[in-house]
Amino acid sequence: MSKCFIEEIEEGLHLTYTIKKLLNSAQSKFQQVEVAETGPFGRCLIIDGLMQSSDIDEHVYHECLVHPSLLAHPNPKTVFIGGGGEGGTARECLRHKGVEKVVMVDIDGDVVNFCKANLPQNTAAFADPRLELIIDDAKARIEGYPPASFDVIIMDLDDPIEGGPCYWLYTKDFYETCKTKLTPGGILVTQCSAAGVKSHSLVWSPVNNTMKQVFKKVHPYSQAVYSFCDEWGWSMGSDDEATLERLSEAEIDKRIGERLSGDLKFLDGCSYQGLFCLSKQHRKTLAEETRVLSVENPAFLSTGTSNKGLGHVANALPSQ
Amino acid sequence: MSKCFIEEIEEGLHLTYTIKKLLNSAQSKFQQVEVAETGPFGRCLIIDGLMQSSDIDEHVYHECLVHPSLLAHPNPKTVFIGGGGEGGTARECLRHKGVEKVVMVDIDGDVVNFCKANLPQNTAAFADPRLELIIDDAKARIEGYPPASFDVIIMDLDDPIEGGPCYWLYTKDFYETCKTKLTPGGILVTQCSAAGVKSHSLVWSPVNNTMKQVFKKVHPYSQAVYSFCDEWGWSMGSDDEATLERLSEAEIDKRIGERLSGDLKFLDGCSYQGLFCLSKQHRKTLAEETRVLSVENPAFLSTGTSNKGLGHVANALPSQ
Amino acid sequence: MSKCFIEEIEEGLHLTYTIKKLLNSAQSKFQQVEVAETGPFGRCLIIDGLMQSSDIDEHVYHECLVHPSLLAHPNPKTVFIGGGGEGGTARECLRHKGVEKVVMVDIDGDVVNFCKANLPQNTAAFADPRLELIIDDAKARIEGYPPASFDVIIMDLDDPIEGGPCYWLYTKDFYETCKTKLTPGGILVTQCSAAGVKSHSLVWSPVNNTMKQVFKKVHPYSQAVYSFCDEWGWSMGSDDEATLERLSEAEIDKRIGERLSGDLKFLDGCSYQGLFCLSKQHRKTLAEETRVLSVENPAFLSTGTSNKGLGHVANALPSQ
Amino acid sequence: MSKCFIEEIEEGLHLTYTIKKLLNSAQSKFQQVEVAETGPFGRCLIIDGLMQSSDIDEHVYHECLVHPSLLAHPNPKTVFIGGGGEGGTARECLRHKGVEKVVMVDIDGDVVNFCKANLPQNTAAFADPRLELIIDDAKARIEGYPPASFDVIIMDLDDPIEGGPCYWLYTKDFYETCKTKLTPGGILVTQCSAAGVKSHSLVWSPVNNTMKQVFKKVHPYSQAVYSFCDEWGWSMGSDDEATLERLSEAEIDKRIGERLSGDLKFLDGCSYQGLFCLSKQHRKTLAEETRVLSVENPAFLSTGTSNKGLGHVANALPSQ
Repeated sequence: MSKCFIEEIEEGLHLTYTIKKLLNSAQSKFQQVEVAETGPFGRCLIIDGLMQSSDIDEHVYHECLVHPSLLAHPNPKTVFIGGGGEGGTARECLRHKGVEKVVMVDIDGDVVNFCKANLPQNTAAFADPRLELIIDDAKARIEGYPPASFDVIIMDLDDPIEGGPCYWLYTKDFYETCKTKLTPGGILVTQCSAAGVKSHSLVWSPVNNTMKQVFKKVHPYSQAVYSFCDEWGWSMGSDDEATLERLSEAEIDKRIGERLSGDLKFLDGCSYQGLFCLSKQHRKTLAEETRVLSVENPAFLSTGTSNKGLGHVANALPSQ
Repeated sequence: MSKCFIEEIEEGLHLTYTIKKLLNSAQSKFQQVEVAETGPFGRCLIIDGLMQSSDIDEHVYHECLVHPSLLAHPNPKTVFIGGGGEGGTARECLRHKGVEKVVMVDIDGDVVNFCKANLPQNTAAFADPRLELIIDDAKARIEGYPPASFDVIIMDLDDPIEGGPCYWLYTKDFYETCKTKLTPGGILVTQCSAAGVKSHSLVWSPVNNTMKQVFKKVHPYSQAVYSFCDEWGWSMGSDDEATLERLSEAEIDKRIGERLSGDLKFLDGCSYQGLFCLSKQHRKTLAEETRVLSVENPAFLSTGTSNKGLGHVANALPSQ
Repeated sequence: MSKCFIEEIEEGLHLTYTIKKLLNSAQSKFQQVEVAETGPFGRCLIIDGLMQSSDIDEHVYHECLVHPSLLAHPNPKTVFIGGGGEGGTARECLRHKGVEKVVMVDIDGDVVNFCKANLPQNTAAFADPRLELIIDDAKARIEGYPPASFDVIIMDLDDPIEGGPCYWLYTKDFYETCKTKLTPGGILVTQCSAAGVKSHSLVWSPVNNTMKQVFKKVHPYSQAVYSFCDEWGWSMGSDDEATLERLSEAEIDKRIGERLSGDLKFLDGCSYQGLFCLSKQHRKTLAEETRVLSVENPAFLSTGTSNKGLGHVANALPSQ
Repeated sequence: MSKCFIEEIEEGLHLTYTIKKLLNSAQSKFQQVEVAETGPFGRCLIIDGLMQSSDIDEHVYHECLVHPSLLAHPNPKTVFIGGGGEGGTARECLRHKGVEKVVMVDIDGDVVNFCKANLPQNTAAFADPRLELIIDDAKARIEGYPPASFDVIIMDLDDPIEGGPCYWLYTKDFYETCKTKLTPGGILVTQCSAAGVKSHSLVWSPVNNTMKQVFKKVHPYSQAVYSFCDEWGWSMGSDDEATLERLSEAEIDKRIGERLSGDLKFLDGCSYQGLFCLSKQHRKTLAEETRVLSVENPAFLSTGTSNKGLGHVANALPSQ
């Protein structure tokens, strides 16, 4: 077997995958960042020992994160991305020919530079003049924008971890702040961590319920991501209920054809429908959820030891 | 960590999960069979080192295998199960109040007895007078039935493995034999192994195409199964195209309400829709598939070393 | 790979070994006890996930623990064993035809019964009328004996672990108590945990120095034990310096021939010499050691998570 | 755990150790060569996934390989090293102030360059003018020397592996060739692979017996090496029985003091004695050994899958 990554999926469950070649490994101010050719997943980005994306299915994650909200919106021109340093989220936003400006705020400039250098599929996105890349704290930055600055806000953050700062960005307060920055009919979407039969109640369910306190309509959706070893969840919310009506298969295919450049690999009208067909079990959890997240009452993905390295991030953020 | 199972998902990818208590372990004539309380998955059935089902999500697999075809059929009374020794497939069939007879043919009587003793959720099914349990080779047995004996045939077999006998049951010849045993409007459904972004072309795609050579209409569908560490695929086929029309969410919920006893945990009208919303990438693979499986040209899940123990099964079957 | 034990040797170093058959597994009042046929080591006793002994080399450990002191003593008739519930230590003591009484005090009666039932090589020892087996706390019991009760005292304890009671038995106070129970010329020997190039300073070195505060002469010795994945250390001490003089190869072979029944597999005059030929590096550590262990200042093998399960043992000992 | 090496020690036994930083990784013409900072072992050299040496104990291996024969010889001036590309063997030879010339022949120039660049403890040795470094096949080269060219020949080769060329260098024919190149009283020593309670019969025992067919006197010796996860064996042979008499502790300390520059960390008179004190069990195996190795009847360490990558080496050696 020789070189491997061993990732803790949950307590008592580890995934071991071979490293064919470690392409780069660096310690940023905040985290350990690595790019490796792996046996089962191809080229992967691994941060603090956790799989972030892989050749084999990063498109699944990024297409699901970006397109449902951008396609639902009648004419999205301005997009804010919180996090997203890898570049895949910006890449998918910039496929939308109508998008005029993408502001991406990631706290870790080293990660961004690292991904620019090591993930060729995102090179063009980083060079796109419509992208404004800011290295800073996403919360501080979005607070500085005037009201109604963005048509879509996409939160592409690390999972909320005890001791890390990201959980501040999965709270009712933060979503209320974001809402004031949306244009009328605007949409906020956030990744919501693992959403499988066992994991969906940890983060996704309380985040989804928290968004429901802020937005008139919230749509949760999910999709299996092989290299994450689970299903994954997202929720999008808006005060414009009509905008968030689920679109028909034909309408999605039509909008993709009209608005996007290049071909999507995963998403089309058919698979779009599937994202929203949650199981009876998942819908029950989401419906019965009562937790509303705040800085005082956060939700965490786990207290897995794999994540302990993130604890120092909080100290690095003097303003919080 | 202490005691663990280590399972090879594919070459270079291993899943390690803790054993809290090994409840039973036995060598049948064909395979090594174990029941364990595991850390992440609860009580599990493991055969030859491969996860067969777990407390956490065996209902996902079994509800997806059984109900789409039985609900699609207007009035299923007789069901044939090939394999299924664990008992979960029979249990789900017997939820259908209209089902009068379930014939289940599994080759490994030791597994059946083992599961009867160790999987309490299936005890009632094994005791149901509508179940006829036969320990024999499924192929030999179904050949012995007169034409038009079953409304639904469910193949709940091990994955096709090089050197094992199961691949004989994933061939055009076998499906043609089965078709003659179906009543008019009858449906055959088979589990089709892993169906993820990377695995779906190995078995599912050629099996689906092989069924298309035999049945006028074939519906592939898939669902993530956490304890299998991937999405899973099934295909159902019928010569009655109307029967296999996808039913509406409301119609599925109605039929579940009218026909089934007890509550399903995973499947309902909404999640039923999701099963069929395959991704663009998956549909492309299935559409472009040209392989037609036969004993001479089989498909195998993998040549992973985990599976090598099955090689002796072929020798144990003199008639093949 | 299927079923395995995964043992943490030290932080960042794990040993994974296959389980062919788990023969028995039970939770005693104090610990999790298991006997398994393993791939690399044959039948093994594993307590709280840590290898205790294996078919392949339990004789190495037990012959090294017992015979150097019993052979050094001119005529050992009475032996006290602290711990030793597995039975191998008693077995080796009882090989000495001159030994008239072996008192073995182990706190865990379940382990003793478990080993009686599962380790056939120790069956005869448990049935030997010279063995008095007491289930109790070794410290409390030895305190109850009159002075000069034993010719040799053998401490065959678990490694000292934070939160466990065993570290009380690796202290100056305890060794002083033991010394009063020794007959003139008597010897105390204790297992001292891992003694490799990296581990020997953790427990062995401070224990050895602690014994030097109590006994006029102390002899440390070590030997590689494959299934422990390291070298192992022992120290024996006596106030009779002549008794503890290292014996010649010929004298050891002579005494073995005269005093023992049955054949030793590992130890003879030649390998006896090797036990005491510590490396320059080891001798330097032992010579420079200044720690003297007490209940207030104990030494621990590690704070490895594997060991955390032992914490409740302390609570089970009301008198301490 | 994140990044790890997983090494197969034997079938069913794996050692997993964390990688803190992968310093270098390269594919030579013959093998995959890596230097990593590891958690448990410090900086390590790993070739084809197998630990070659580590900060924590490479001195144990190299001091044991080199000094027993050079100290036994009355006045060694010329030394031949077969293999040894890492540099540690040359380094220890060059400590001997009386040594005038060390010829080192390693087949893999890339490994040599890699180790020069990455193992600072060997830098001085590579720069020593007494070292003649030749990149070639050791067998072909030594055959080209006139008789009586070397006082000591040290074989520091990879373990003999099926399909690899090294097993040609563990044969009677090869030792006979070497003997003709020794000066009167000259000594040949070879590393003999794992020498533990379970492994010592695989390679060490037949190699030792093969040497006994060629040399009048052969001394086997062993020592635990933690990072190799076992004891390790060496054998040295000479036709001068007096030279190979085991030296006293005092004589070894005297010769070390007189002849060597710098301090040894592991070896001195005391630990030297321990190397030769083999256990009863080991001596029995060695004494009863009947195998005599030849190209037609070689011995292999194992057929572990970890080693399969070496198979192509044979093809790379046109002359064999």
